[in-house]
Amino acid sequence: MRHLLSTRTLGRDDAIRLLDIAEDMADVQDREVKKLPTLRGKTVVNLFFEDSTRTRISFEAAAKRLSADVINFSAKGSSVSKGESLKDTAQTLAAMGADAVVVRHHASGAPQTLATSGWIDAGIINAGDGTHEHPTQALLDAFTMRRRLHGAASRGRDLDGVTVTIVGDILHSRVARSNVWLLETLGATVTLVAPPTLLPVDVSGWPAQIGFDLDAAIDAGPDVIMMLRIQAERMNAAFFPNTREYARRWGLDDERLSRLRTDSIVMHPGPMNRGLEISAAAADSPRSTVREQVANGVSVRMAALYLLLSGGDREDA
Amino acid sequence: MRHLLSTRTLGRDDAIRLLDIAEDMADVQDREVKKLPTLRGKTVVNLFFEDSTRTRISFEAAAKRLSADVINFSAKGSSVSKGESLKDTAQTLAAMGADAVVVRHHASGAPQTLATSGWIDAGIINAGDGTHEHPTQALLDAFTMRRRLHGAASRGRDLDGVTVTIVGDILHSRVARSNVWLLETLGATVTLVAPPTLLPVDVSGWPAQIGFDLDAAIDAGPDVIMMLRIQAERMNAAFFPNTREYARRWGLDDERLSRLRTDSIVMHPGPMNRGLEISAAAADSPRSTVREQVANGVSVRMAALYLLLSGGDREDA
Amino acid sequence: MRHLLSTRTLGRDDAIRLLDIAEDMADVQDREVKKLPTLRGKTVVNLFFEDSTRTRISFEAAAKRLSADVINFSAKGSSVSKGESLKDTAQTLAAMGADAVVVRHHASGAPQTLATSGWIDAGIINAGDGTHEHPTQALLDAFTMRRRLHGAASRGRDLDGVTVTIVGDILHSRVARSNVWLLETLGATVTLVAPPTLLPVDVSGWPAQIGFDLDAAIDAGPDVIMMLRIQAERMNAAFFPNTREYARRWGLDDERLSRLRTDSIVMHPGPMNRGLEISAAAADSPRSTVREQVANGVSVRMAALYLLLSGGDREDA
Repeated sequence: MRHLLSTRTLGRDDAIRLLDIAEDMADVQDREVKKLPTLRGKTVVNLFFEDSTRTRISFEAAAKRLSADVINFSAKGSSVSKGESLKDTAQTLAAMGADAVVVRHHASGAPQTLATSGWIDAGIINAGDGTHEHPTQALLDAFTMRRRLHGAASRGRDLDGVTVTIVGDILHSRVARSNVWLLETLGATVTLVAPPTLLPVDVSGWPAQIGFDLDAAIDAGPDVIMMLRIQAERMNAAFFPNTREYARRWGLDDERLSRLRTDSIVMHPGPMNRGLEISAAAADSPRSTVREQVANGVSVRMAALYLLLSGGDREDA
Repeated sequence: MRHLLSTRTLGRDDAIRLLDIAEDMADVQDREVKKLPTLRGKTVVNLFFEDSTRTRISFEAAAKRLSADVINFSAKGSSVSKGESLKDTAQTLAAMGADAVVVRHHASGAPQTLATSGWIDAGIINAGDGTHEHPTQALLDAFTMRRRLHGAASRGRDLDGVTVTIVGDILHSRVARSNVWLLETLGATVTLVAPPTLLPVDVSGWPAQIGFDLDAAIDAGPDVIMMLRIQAERMNAAFFPNTREYARRWGLDDERLSRLRTDSIVMHPGPMNRGLEISAAAADSPRSTVREQVANGVSVRMAALYLLLSGGDREDA
Repeated sequence: MRHLLSTRTLGRDDAIRLLDIAEDMADVQDREVKKLPTLRGKTVVNLFFEDSTRTRISFEAAAKRLSADVINFSAKGSSVSKGESLKDTAQTLAAMGADAVVVRHHASGAPQTLATSGWIDAGIINAGDGTHEHPTQALLDAFTMRRRLHGAASRGRDLDGVTVTIVGDILHSRVARSNVWLLETLGATVTLVAPPTLLPVDVSGWPAQIGFDLDAAIDAGPDVIMMLRIQAERMNAAFFPNTREYARRWGLDDERLSRLRTDSIVMHPGPMNRGLEISAAAADSPRSTVREQVANGVSVRMAALYLLLSGGDREDA
């Protein structure tokens, strides 16, 4: 694997291979010394044009546990803000010997540009680009589903027949996009539930069913319900008079939680607005995978860095 | 030791044990290679809700000299500022496998909450919470006093009979609070000297004598005089017409320095306002321990991280 | 070598020794594991009073490839901004055991002050001070010229007889100053070409020829042409009505590029304003060394850190 830019273009075998290596990496997290020498001498640059402490420290922990050197490059206050182009930044990082660049960018497509421009040889990992994709989030979500639903028999398996309902602001969510494509590839069936104003105009072309009624979606009994974070600033739109109304119609409150199948799981990419898109009881219930998602994020990112930087023979892990 | 939250609850034996391990760590600083492999594979997170470069880099140097991986998490510009709760932050760090969290927070009690909430298993070190405590500062101060007063015979000893005068803004100082409790535990006698408006209302319950006259306190001949930093913004209060008046009444100027016992020591937690609470001559005199305090801070923080993360058998150091 | 503060005071033998060690370090960059254990246990502090991500990450990569521990200290938001003096900052870093301090400061002379004050024993590297010097930039430039012009026969050689033309904002450029002194020491002949308002008043005392006509300078056929970055804010001055006029008179555009000798090289310290002081074609042409300069920067900084911190026996590299 040269780059990890998108789940849309990620094949089933590559996805399963990455998830299987992430299982190995999860085992490393349980050791006394949570560290492998695998990427010693490699340099991983976290190139963040948008703040995202959670994502940055997850990649940083992943890289350090593989013994890579990590350099954090926040584009704020850098020469980027003095007008340096993405090209010059990329060429600078290439010249400094970056082996992988983890990039978060406000513009959809920026990681793709880095990977295909020829400006830099390093492996590129998309850590979120505009409203486009966030592939490691989708991979950690799939990893979490596989572990919860298949348990010890996870390795090698896909998500064939699993039903997943994603609820909330689909329009602005790269998490939703990356999940839809990856879940389709892995054989799951996806339903999107959202206010009409928070659905993309082209959503009819997505490999997913669309719904507007959260209660009906819950009564359908999905294996997985994934609540997306709603940004407070969306509440200014005419459609949502206030957060209470949003919570009432699109939030996973206690009553809806009680109507979910008892073996279904509740996911959220974090950070959660407790009391808005998800109740405290739902967030903290045994069905909630929120903490596992974070832990699995480190394992999945270790696997991604490993595949990009080590040649990727699984036997070496 | 599971956490280091407060000196008020720190027992004498634990305190002396930590100071003795810090002696071992100070020896490491004198080596050609100032590094131990002790915490290899451990992850230390510096979680700073307030800026404090000095404290952060002291903990960072301490953790790196023990071969831990360090992740800096400044809460500014992070999802915390988007309204993420302390609970979610803690659970995120727990899930990422943080072994210790060094926390600086504007709210008194935040580190205690982290340690007792069950949100996170990591060892918590309070690096300053509101106006409450700053225990590693008090420990480095006690370490400095012990070395200066007992010399090579420091190990295993407390501060029985030592007299310490702390001068300045007691009201807002977590340094003063942590020192008062630890010095009481170690057998020292403390006198607080401050303008009446900069004393806490409950100070009569503290294990310390109170005074308002710096000259009288100096003439009493304490073993240690500790000058606190005065914040410029306090000068707006009616009590202090200006900084000159503060320096005249509460500053350790050259004349007062000359009246101190010749074997007494002058301490300051830094950064100093030279010419305000302390004169340049006092700051730079051989009696001043300001630089030693900083150096000892790294040793004491190494000891704290070691005790929290390695099981803490002293023989292993 | 105790410090690296200026190229003005750097002797020919020391300069060539550093460039030769940088050749060894460049070889390390080509290895599978780009890392030496040389500075294990050493602490390098990046003390940046001005933002400069490019320079900071170059030093950070250099230090990490030598296995040093790196601590980044941005003076923004630190106690420095609360009025801490350079002296207190230096003494704090000394007490924490910093072995080298890489300092970027807005005031010319600040690194010299750190090195000669006695406040700190660490080796000091000037990473840019005011409009004064930026010695590692000049060294990487000289390294780049030597490699391009002498090829495999570079080691041990100077730049005797090489002709270098530096174009642009000489007045505000520490890069120009450091280059002029080092190039003189290494035997090169320097011509400065600039608008009269962007030349220092004392330039007649510099070891360089002065010109105002870029076309004449190009027709003279220099071995090296170095274009400096022009800051947009200079455009407000009466002399430059707009950027187009600057580009027309002082920019290396495609037409001028075509008139350069075919074996001459085009340098720029970055980040470039493509279309302003340099055309995109010039920036990306095979004669351009811009990317090599960045790569060489890591090697040269590794060499500088090595010389300052390891005693500097070349055989050990």
